[in-house]
Amino acid sequence: MKLIKKINILIVGLGLLGGSYAKALKKLGFYVTAITKDADSIDFALEKGIIDKGTTKIDPEIIGEADLVIFALYPHIFIEWIKKNQQYFKASAVITDVTGVKGCIVREIQDILREDVEFISAHPMAGKEVSGVENSDETIFKGANYIVVPTEKNTTEAIELCCNIGELLGFKQVAILSVEEHDEMIAFLSQLTHCIAVSLMCCNNTPELEKYTGDSFRDLTRIARINDEMWSELFLSNKDCLLNEMDKFKASFDELYNKIKADDREGMREMMRLSTQRRKLFDKN
Amino acid sequence: MKLIKKINILIVGLGLLGGSYAKALKKLGFYVTAITKDADSIDFALEKGIIDKGTTKIDPEIIGEADLVIFALYPHIFIEWIKKNQQYFKASAVITDVTGVKGCIVREIQDILREDVEFISAHPMAGKEVSGVENSDETIFKGANYIVVPTEKNTTEAIELCCNIGELLGFKQVAILSVEEHDEMIAFLSQLTHCIAVSLMCCNNTPELEKYTGDSFRDLTRIARINDEMWSELFLSNKDCLLNEMDKFKASFDELYNKIKADDREGMREMMRLSTQRRKLFDKN
Repeated sequence: MKLIKKINILIVGLGLLGGSYAKALKKLGFYVTAITKDADSIDFALEKGIIDKGTTKIDPEIIGEADLVIFALYPHIFIEWIKKNQQYFKASAVITDVTGVKGCIVREIQDILREDVEFISAHPMAGKEVSGVENSDETIFKGANYIVVPTEKNTTEAIELCCNIGELLGFKQVAILSVEEHDEMIAFLSQLTHCIAVSLMCCNNTPELEKYTGDSFRDLTRIARINDEMWSELFLSNKDCLLNEMDKFKASFDELYNKIKADDREGMREMMRLSTQRRKLFDKN
Repeated sequence: MKLIKKINILIVGLGLLGGSYAKALKKLGFYVTAITKDADSIDFALEKGIIDKGTTKIDPEIIGEADLVIFALYPHIFIEWIKKNQQYFKASAVITDVTGVKGCIVREIQDILREDVEFISAHPMAGKEVSGVENSDETIFKGANYIVVPTEKNTTEAIELCCNIGELLGFKQVAILSVEEHDEMIAFLSQLTHCIAVSLMCCNNTPELEKYTGDSFRDLTRIARINDEMWSELFLSNKDCLLNEMDKFKASFDELYNKIKADDREGMREMMRLSTQRRKLFDKN
């Protein structure tokens, strides 16, 4: 299958990310349908022209018409959905996803999936601190990274198709990682940062701190406004990798702590120079 | 002294903050002079019209003409400067500062200062990841907080004058804290966040992480580009408060770690809901 405008795209799960995909793909000229549990989300998306057709039901017709199905569901719901409804997929359909962890889903879904349907996994590294299709916004992909996570079961065609989706959506960079590389990377870059932000926000209950704050505290805690249902599932789905990254951070934080305690100014400055040098690579341009 | 346009303002230390003060005050119509160690900074500031007059020398005339002197120096240099040069101050001059820690300087300077000069301390909570007068920018004060830190030695007039400076510079909020309150607050809101960012940047040396990163990691590490000379001095100048806040953060981070390890999903969600609720107060509007 090539990613040409004639293909019919179904989005399952019309929240912030599903809705942003729908908006972007519809603007690009694709025929976009949606299945989601909440009727208000379908009404909103139809009214705003974000989708062409949508339902809260498991509609075999809508599912069977789709050449490409994009899943934007919580991990355990995604697996359940495939088990219950995969018989409705069109033969040769390709399915992909936006799930933030891969080890707990990719191989399991590929194992249970029909032989004539291919699952190629992806992780669009974009988001917001708000949820719901009402907040969907296709500009969140600009400047962001899109990771394709194939296994040995995937065909070159499906991998290419999935890369093309990332490019079309406007991501700045499309990269390919293995399941294990992805989960280690995401534990460090995304899950650990959320753990830090939550811990920082919880560790001090002095009133009126917001009166005195500068931007550094605001920046570090932006992601402390967190969807607890989703992130607790993501953390536990990637528990071993995450605990490992948390251990690394604790060791580094303890090192700095001990240097401050020992008045080891040169040791502190060495860490600061290393951090300055490394951080330069992460600037957006 | 009232903050009227006729007063003559001297800035000592023409870096990022000193330069930003100069720009803002000059635009407001004040006569602004500067003393700084680097001749290039003076040349730049004169050429750009950021100051009216400037020198790299300890010039008794420039010092003696100033009604208000603003110090933007490292803490230990600030104290040395006062010891060596305070004889040149005009009688009834008011001096203030931008120093990020207060316990190590405010009472010491008030104790050694001439009786006919008053030191009222302030901390403008604004900055950038770059330094030098070339990067000065008076818009960094917009939306930011300005803290006045008086002691029992300060007069109501000087406290009011100092508050007025914050308002004139365009700060969103001007607040008053005691030396002890300030240092505890700054240890948490500013120093701890810098410790976290530096530790996070140092704890993982996997190459090419920047290819895969999302905005959350970028936001958490923006301040990991850090002036090691200045921040190591600030950390050590406020060591006890900072270690105390680091302990609190470690306890909170360990709590989350243990909940993840124990699969205590409800416990994790409780912390996430607390963090979400608290973080809402910190939104800029």
